[in-house]
Amino acid sequence: MRIGVLTAGGDCPGLNAVIRSVVHRAVDNYGDEVIGFEDGYAGLLDGRYRPLDLDAVSGILARGGTILGSSRLERDRLREACENASDMIRDFGIDALIPIGGEGTLTAAHMLSEAGLPVVGVPKTIDNDISSTDRTFGFDTAVGVATEAMDRLKTTAESHQRVMVVEVMGRHAGWIALESGMAAGAHGICLPERAFDPARLVKMIEKRFARGKKFAVICVAEGAHPADGTMDYGKGEIDKFGHERFQGIGTALAHELEQRLGKEARPVILGHIQRGGTPTAYDRVLATRFGWHAVEAAHQERFGRMTALRGTDIVMVPLAEAVTELKTVPKHRMDEAESVY
Amino acid sequence: MRIGVLTAGGDCPGLNAVIRSVVHRAVDNYGDEVIGFEDGYAGLLDGRYRPLDLDAVSGILARGGTILGSSRLERDRLREACENASDMIRDFGIDALIPIGGEGTLTAAHMLSEAGLPVVGVPKTIDNDISSTDRTFGFDTAVGVATEAMDRLKTTAESHQRVMVVEVMGRHAGWIALESGMAAGAHGICLPERAFDPARLVKMIEKRFARGKKFAVICVAEGAHPADGTMDYGKGEIDKFGHERFQGIGTALAHELEQRLGKEARPVILGHIQRGGTPTAYDRVLATRFGWHAVEAAHQERFGRMTALRGTDIVMVPLAEAVTELKTVPKHRMDEAESVY
Amino acid sequence: MRIGVLTAGGDCPGLNAVIRSVVHRAVDNYGDEVIGFEDGYAGLLDGRYRPLDLDAVSGILARGGTILGSSRLERDRLREACENASDMIRDFGIDALIPIGGEGTLTAAHMLSEAGLPVVGVPKTIDNDISSTDRTFGFDTAVGVATEAMDRLKTTAESHQRVMVVEVMGRHAGWIALESGMAAGAHGICLPERAFDPARLVKMIEKRFARGKKFAVICVAEGAHPADGTMDYGKGEIDKFGHERFQGIGTALAHELEQRLGKEARPVILGHIQRGGTPTAYDRVLATRFGWHAVEAAHQERFGRMTALRGTDIVMVPLAEAVTELKTVPKHRMDEAESVY
Amino acid sequence: MRIGVLTAGGDCPGLNAVIRSVVHRAVDNYGDEVIGFEDGYAGLLDGRYRPLDLDAVSGILARGGTILGSSRLERDRLREACENASDMIRDFGIDALIPIGGEGTLTAAHMLSEAGLPVVGVPKTIDNDISSTDRTFGFDTAVGVATEAMDRLKTTAESHQRVMVVEVMGRHAGWIALESGMAAGAHGICLPERAFDPARLVKMIEKRFARGKKFAVICVAEGAHPADGTMDYGKGEIDKFGHERFQGIGTALAHELEQRLGKEARPVILGHIQRGGTPTAYDRVLATRFGWHAVEAAHQERFGRMTALRGTDIVMVPLAEAVTELKTVPKHRMDEAESVY
Repeated sequence: MRIGVLTAGGDCPGLNAVIRSVVHRAVDNYGDEVIGFEDGYAGLLDGRYRPLDLDAVSGILARGGTILGSSRLERDRLREACENASDMIRDFGIDALIPIGGEGTLTAAHMLSEAGLPVVGVPKTIDNDISSTDRTFGFDTAVGVATEAMDRLKTTAESHQRVMVVEVMGRHAGWIALESGMAAGAHGICLPERAFDPARLVKMIEKRFARGKKFAVICVAEGAHPADGTMDYGKGEIDKFGHERFQGIGTALAHELEQRLGKEARPVILGHIQRGGTPTAYDRVLATRFGWHAVEAAHQERFGRMTALRGTDIVMVPLAEAVTELKTVPKHRMDEAESVY
Repeated sequence: MRIGVLTAGGDCPGLNAVIRSVVHRAVDNYGDEVIGFEDGYAGLLDGRYRPLDLDAVSGILARGGTILGSSRLERDRLREACENASDMIRDFGIDALIPIGGEGTLTAAHMLSEAGLPVVGVPKTIDNDISSTDRTFGFDTAVGVATEAMDRLKTTAESHQRVMVVEVMGRHAGWIALESGMAAGAHGICLPERAFDPARLVKMIEKRFARGKKFAVICVAEGAHPADGTMDYGKGEIDKFGHERFQGIGTALAHELEQRLGKEARPVILGHIQRGGTPTAYDRVLATRFGWHAVEAAHQERFGRMTALRGTDIVMVPLAEAVTELKTVPKHRMDEAESVY
Repeated sequence: MRIGVLTAGGDCPGLNAVIRSVVHRAVDNYGDEVIGFEDGYAGLLDGRYRPLDLDAVSGILARGGTILGSSRLERDRLREACENASDMIRDFGIDALIPIGGEGTLTAAHMLSEAGLPVVGVPKTIDNDISSTDRTFGFDTAVGVATEAMDRLKTTAESHQRVMVVEVMGRHAGWIALESGMAAGAHGICLPERAFDPARLVKMIEKRFARGKKFAVICVAEGAHPADGTMDYGKGEIDKFGHERFQGIGTALAHELEQRLGKEARPVILGHIQRGGTPTAYDRVLATRFGWHAVEAAHQERFGRMTALRGTDIVMVPLAEAVTELKTVPKHRMDEAESVY
Repeated sequence: MRIGVLTAGGDCPGLNAVIRSVVHRAVDNYGDEVIGFEDGYAGLLDGRYRPLDLDAVSGILARGGTILGSSRLERDRLREACENASDMIRDFGIDALIPIGGEGTLTAAHMLSEAGLPVVGVPKTIDNDISSTDRTFGFDTAVGVATEAMDRLKTTAESHQRVMVVEVMGRHAGWIALESGMAAGAHGICLPERAFDPARLVKMIEKRFARGKKFAVICVAEGAHPADGTMDYGKGEIDKFGHERFQGIGTALAHELEQRLGKEARPVILGHIQRGGTPTAYDRVLATRFGWHAVEAAHQERFGRMTALRGTDIVMVPLAEAVTELKTVPKHRMDEAESVY
């Protein structure tokens, strides 16, 4: 069997672990040939690829990034790209294509599958927002990085009697903010799923101060936003070139809290450190299992599906299901955290 | 409501996170009173306890160990202890007892519950071997520590062209060996669930050497054992006092491989570093959720149950179910790992 | 002997290790009494303090922050404060005062000493910019945090073929940027000590791209600045309230590089995570040694001095020397790094 | 110029950083040619080497181990090897040889230098026991690993009310035990430099217990030994094959303390995890500076010397000086630690 692999979309710890696992299972067990397309679908469209044998994936399990490179596919070029991809897959004699990527990648995978091509998807997002899988790899690493950062910030906040507002990733779903906020014991958590009222945060912080706890750490997803009319936010500022520039919610909220509390409040924007570097053991295991099951599915000709974690098992779910809706934080998970505002 | 908490059995990262969560939910939300018994059931039997308010659990979320202390209950004193415990619980006016512990602790909890006492259990084991919950807290931390150790050992093994045999925890179930072995890319994994044949390990290592990879890392659960007749193991050595002493499997296997391969093979016994220290974010979240749901169960008078993870949800399962059988590594999980011998 | 301790200025990993060491040496070895003033000199002036015995410092060695709290002393209130402090020290019957802090704190300590008070200083700055000591504690931790962040960012930059500009602490001295940049293999390093020319950075990055390395990581000290006329920087932007706001150099440089290169360039501002949390082993040892020697100096009545690392030894240097000039990165250290622009 | 590099002796974090630095400085700045001999002096003697250009050292800065492989040279073959090496160096047209290694390697380097060959040494030992340099790279990483392990063990020891004896590396010099013991706050530290009396350890532990601290962590260098007549140690046990086997001091001391205290005491032998894996930022910087200065020395024809850290500077010291005596822990450093027995 000839298997093609590609990684697309944003960086995510565990991508190399999937690639390695696919190669190990396919080459070592089945005697398959595996080729890796470079820079995501771009490599598939341009015919840029390289053979992947055991040596090619040696030592990459714990390494962040992707040895194949990645790129984002623009939405409006998707259909056109899929048509070209179909030709390429036939030309290259690919018996199974394993695209590893997020929502866009899986949507493209679904189109290819609908066009009759042999596709097995592997879901990837540090945001953990793909429905039909309990978890995605990369998420645990992102939560770990954010938690460690907040662990560090807590001691500083306490020594300085200061409020820290930590902005973590999550534009549409607040999983990273929820779990890192819980893990680090953030005193307030703001998610995209629920508009927050800064007045309630202020009240909580003042209650803490009254108890003698002279600091607070607030964990905010980048996609969190204040309830209408509660805070002046979302109007851009005019930069020196006369352009309107939007401030991140972390910075805006720190400013707002500082004004309302009359105390120092500082924003920390974690940014890309959440999506790079060595994956946690959890993510390496999940990524490895996904790769293994993707190869199994290819050999069983269970195409048009993607790997998914359900409880402790890896199952294959239809790509059609996977891409329909975003998995957001449900209310009962917010309740458990106690500190979602 | 008056809630009693205790921690029993071996140390496990996340114990403090459960205690903190119980106090936060019970005191802050319900206005309950929480007391913590010291040193496990021993504190309950001796009446040694202290009140736990918000200040008492401040800053403990990320700390290893247990602020309450712990002790192991001897099996044969279990029934007697339970009888005394019943009296104590009534004397102290405890409306709900939340014991946090492993199999022994939960068995005792089950007995207390059978005797009509209001008990909600929280399962705890770094070994991840309690059935009826997908995962237990502490396990992720143990896997992380073992993985990091093997990451380090791999570079040393490679530089020295040496075989390293790493013994990790897991007397009856091989979950830590399985997952840390997968995460670190161990070339061989030996579990209690499947007797291994050293000859097969030797063959695999020689194949690696033939491929130009002049080193190997073998991950062995402390409860792993060779198939009958494959290796001289299990007879004790006579120490200088004339006593028979049993060698651990890690040391024995390193010795065996060294003899068979004619190459340096070294054992590393990770031991207790796997069960101490700061819990991972994953374990802190799971522990926090367990604590929260234990308090909810107490208020809903759902006694005789313990918290359990099922998929992404925390559910309450009967204690009777929990303690019936050990959760061991099933064959399909060994297959996925590719390298279980 | 009655010893007073206080911590002042910004948070710095290792403060608790100094406090613990002072208490261990003074109480356990000499039978001294130790009291800790709260929130820096403020506690001394207000008479807020607490006794510090062995139990009070138990378990704090590895903890970030300071159990005594901290505050910054405003420059213009320094002289007045010193006068009041003198009275307080006499009133409290303090035989030796050990202030732990940065340049401002040590200047105040010098004034107190000049006024005849028994003072032994302990230098503290994550910036490593205090002359007359080879290193200060906290610096190693800050460098470690920045290095780990850049390790993570490198894989992401590589996968995304992107330029990352990482802004680290260092307003007047570039030690953190220099050492973390070297440790992480940053392709360009910008320091306060040498005005950089963005054109040279652009040339280096283009040379990398020509070599097939499609990414770069630039490490910039917050106090770095472009050479005159090389880049439009330093004019503030007008925010929505009509105030001028200055952009950090990291953000400005990323923007500039993006424009010049025609490639994505992203800023990451590490901020306060560099100064909080568990100190590295190096910092704990250095802090512990400083505390020990401060107590020794007190008992030998070697006042008006501060602890300093010289090679492998801790020596006592006159406070007068310590506060005269900032220790900046010399040219030969920049040469070694190869990549300072 | 044609420069040959080799790494010899035990694994040590930072070796790759030196190799990378040599290549960067020599190739990029001077246009030199660099070749790397494989597996230490063995590669030099067998003529096994490979060219090292910028691509060959890309991405290795943070990686443990050595891309060149290593081997130990047997003492009695040293002189013979040196003679052959001289021929090889001339045959290969090597203008400068940079051996990176420990005492044995530097002794060989000294011999080669005495024989008129152009040699610049780079000292390497995780034990930090090479005189004439303040520190060696690898040491900081080893101390960090040991400290983190003890941080974890402390919480476990406390929860279980147990004594933990942690054996760390250091056969002839106790630097790792001293600094990791100080950093982790070990209650007792035993070094090769001072024979310990178990009775004194017992007394200290009992004093702790009396204070209500029901646990202790003892940090023992592998080369530590009891004072004569204080403990039955050093006689081997007879294994099942009838051979005498020597028990490590960690295991022996745990056993001894258990007997004397009547309390559980457990040994943990850290072993090779101390010498593998990612180097700390400190070690990467030191290793990088050593590599840079070695190339400078080669170009200045300052042969027969090795790089050394003195205070904050890298200096070149005669190899003759470096190999004369071991740098052991002096008494005043033991005094500072307070807990050396």
